[in-house]
Amino acid sequence: MNIIVQKYGGTSVGTIAKIKSVADRILREKEAGLAMVVVVSAMGHTTDRLVSLARAITRKPSRREMDMLLSTGEQISIALLSLAIQERSAKAISLTGLQCGIVTDSNYSMAKIKSVRTGVIESQLAKDHVVIVAGFQGVSDGFEITTLGRGGSDTTAAALAVALRARCCEIYTDVDGVFTTDPNVVPEAKQLPYISYEEMVELAGAGAQVLHPRSVEIAMKFGVPIAVRRSDSDAPGTVVMEAAKLENAVITGVTGNKNIAKVAIRGIPDRPGVAAQIFSALGSQGINIRLIIQSIAADGLNDISVVVSREFVRQAAEVLEGQRKSLKAKEIVFHDQLAEVSIVGSGIASTPGVAARMFRALARRRINIDLISSSEVRITCVIDERRTTEAIRALHREFQLERLQRGMLRG
Amino acid sequence: MNIIVQKYGGTSVGTIAKIKSVADRILREKEAGLAMVVVVSAMGHTTDRLVSLARAITRKPSRREMDMLLSTGEQISIALLSLAIQERSAKAISLTGLQCGIVTDSNYSMAKIKSVRTGVIESQLAKDHVVIVAGFQGVSDGFEITTLGRGGSDTTAAALAVALRARCCEIYTDVDGVFTTDPNVVPEAKQLPYISYEEMVELAGAGAQVLHPRSVEIAMKFGVPIAVRRSDSDAPGTVVMEAAKLENAVITGVTGNKNIAKVAIRGIPDRPGVAAQIFSALGSQGINIRLIIQSIAADGLNDISVVVSREFVRQAAEVLEGQRKSLKAKEIVFHDQLAEVSIVGSGIASTPGVAARMFRALARRRINIDLISSSEVRITCVIDERRTTEAIRALHREFQLERLQRGMLRG
Repeated sequence: MNIIVQKYGGTSVGTIAKIKSVADRILREKEAGLAMVVVVSAMGHTTDRLVSLARAITRKPSRREMDMLLSTGEQISIALLSLAIQERSAKAISLTGLQCGIVTDSNYSMAKIKSVRTGVIESQLAKDHVVIVAGFQGVSDGFEITTLGRGGSDTTAAALAVALRARCCEIYTDVDGVFTTDPNVVPEAKQLPYISYEEMVELAGAGAQVLHPRSVEIAMKFGVPIAVRRSDSDAPGTVVMEAAKLENAVITGVTGNKNIAKVAIRGIPDRPGVAAQIFSALGSQGINIRLIIQSIAADGLNDISVVVSREFVRQAAEVLEGQRKSLKAKEIVFHDQLAEVSIVGSGIASTPGVAARMFRALARRRINIDLISSSEVRITCVIDERRTTEAIRALHREFQLERLQRGMLRG
Repeated sequence: MNIIVQKYGGTSVGTIAKIKSVADRILREKEAGLAMVVVVSAMGHTTDRLVSLARAITRKPSRREMDMLLSTGEQISIALLSLAIQERSAKAISLTGLQCGIVTDSNYSMAKIKSVRTGVIESQLAKDHVVIVAGFQGVSDGFEITTLGRGGSDTTAAALAVALRARCCEIYTDVDGVFTTDPNVVPEAKQLPYISYEEMVELAGAGAQVLHPRSVEIAMKFGVPIAVRRSDSDAPGTVVMEAAKLENAVITGVTGNKNIAKVAIRGIPDRPGVAAQIFSALGSQGINIRLIIQSIAADGLNDISVVVSREFVRQAAEVLEGQRKSLKAKEIVFHDQLAEVSIVGSGIASTPGVAARMFRALARRRINIDLISSSEVRITCVIDERRTTEAIRALHREFQLERLQRGMLRG
């Protein structure tokens, strides 16, 4: 079977009119002979509305009940999209995460997919149904409803594409594709026709909102290409694929992320295992650490700085305050007026001087660099939040991304 | 375990404030040492809103997808109520129909409960949780989501009360209990402290909105009492229980039902099996027949009249039009300006002259009786819809229901 997995985000199914036009688009592809599996998110602001109902009841909602609550949003959109397809005289069936066999662990609100049982979907495809799957949700032991956290619908789509050996995973959204940077910040930003998985993971992790890194990682493992396309256009968008098939590019993108904060633990006597203790204390509370940096002060006491998403900063500060005594640390301070700017590109590791060019471009504009981290294909600087836009523009110009040309290699 | 099953209808959980006060009420009872199982409906107008979304897409929605869509309403309220109880530092868990083992047939939108697997609920009660169950929904083969149709949450509550051998099933609503008739029509209407299952089934079937007859039938089979109470009051309400424990009452209530219509098949040649053919043609389309009456005309041709709920009248007329040729009938006519008025009481069968008093009371006001039907504990007359209120008032006065006294027998 020639299977395509498509995913439509909340804005793409935000109104009844949009749901109808998504149905039209799906049927055009189906008529071309493809077996269609469609993942949808909750309509527009449904999730926000449900969250605000819960917030009116409690400030600390249990994660299990939040998953019970939020998973209804996708259940509404799958039923409506299925009705819209049936209204066009085609066969369709909607399936919740539970019904289509997306099995997760029990980590409510940020569950990880353990396996996908494809039997139900395959038998519905064989009966010529468009299969419409609720994104963002799964089921754990005992038929418990779980959700996959941020970008969950992208993850659902990628996992289904892999499990079903789909030809492609198409992510429909309200932008034209992946850009060299946010076009709202840099008007000359250029849409990339192709990008490698590794670059995409780093761009997404560094703040590009268009795709969640988890979905890219899943697709990368099994080599399923992801196309990022606009739901109301026929333009090809951006294809995320294997680097080996792409012409090299030193830098493909610049991103900024204002959603970060730093917690510093000051004055810790130097002894082994301190970083491990901090990692496990934060990890057990589900707090993701973006970056951890240890610096040795003159008096034999260490400072450890932890960079986290801003939503976690108060929780992280509380957890670390609880650890302060056993760490024998002097104080915990947090700072949430920070941002990250990153450059991403598969040529970073192999091209000398890229990091130096980045730091110089920032220094020329007197933007102080607080912390630095890097990977094979990314360099990130933590800076003052107020300088984010300026830094992004400077880096985009420095690496001449408005002139970026990149093609697919033959073969 | 001393289990109570409570059910809160849509208006009782219609706002966040009401959900909080329902949580308070539940915890008061729990603190008195009861194991609490709570069934909730969708908040206020949620179901209507979901239906109108579907209607904006299609005029003939598939019943499977409607069940997928509508079942989200109850899922939202169980999560919110569970959060409200947890916020009050008590343990609670919400369960969908699927999760708590309410197994139904596959008749979407009007599924019947086949069995209730109580294991999950019992183990949660044993862990001191308030168990909050989504009303109106169940699960059929292959984890398909089904809904139970009108009054479905009452049915869920009664079925759980029976399966869990609960001490009582309490139905919380926005009225004080069961009245001798609708107090909006007859201001002297009296609230009944007690009523028998049989009388309640007939009252509900004859148009009293307070309880669905299916839920009463389920409770009756196993002798579980049902209390109908107001959710914002501590008044005892009305208890529905075994007739043998109650003092006799000739008539306990009068009801009117404007939601009916008649389809007449005129001029059918007399032969056996005609009524059966009509029954099965309508039944196969899920149309409930309230009453079927055959009359022999002078020329050897029969007329057959079928009384149905008004929502089914066009569908019934279409089905019968399809049967007209094979019935050799002259014409199908339908009339939807009709109403039923009924008197209900356990003394009807044993008290001579009750029917005659009813007909005289209507005749005195020149209200024509179109059709009559009766059971052991009910007499129903079909009349002109415009005379409904007048007929109800006349019958309430005739049987002096404003003076009704009825107690429970000792023992």
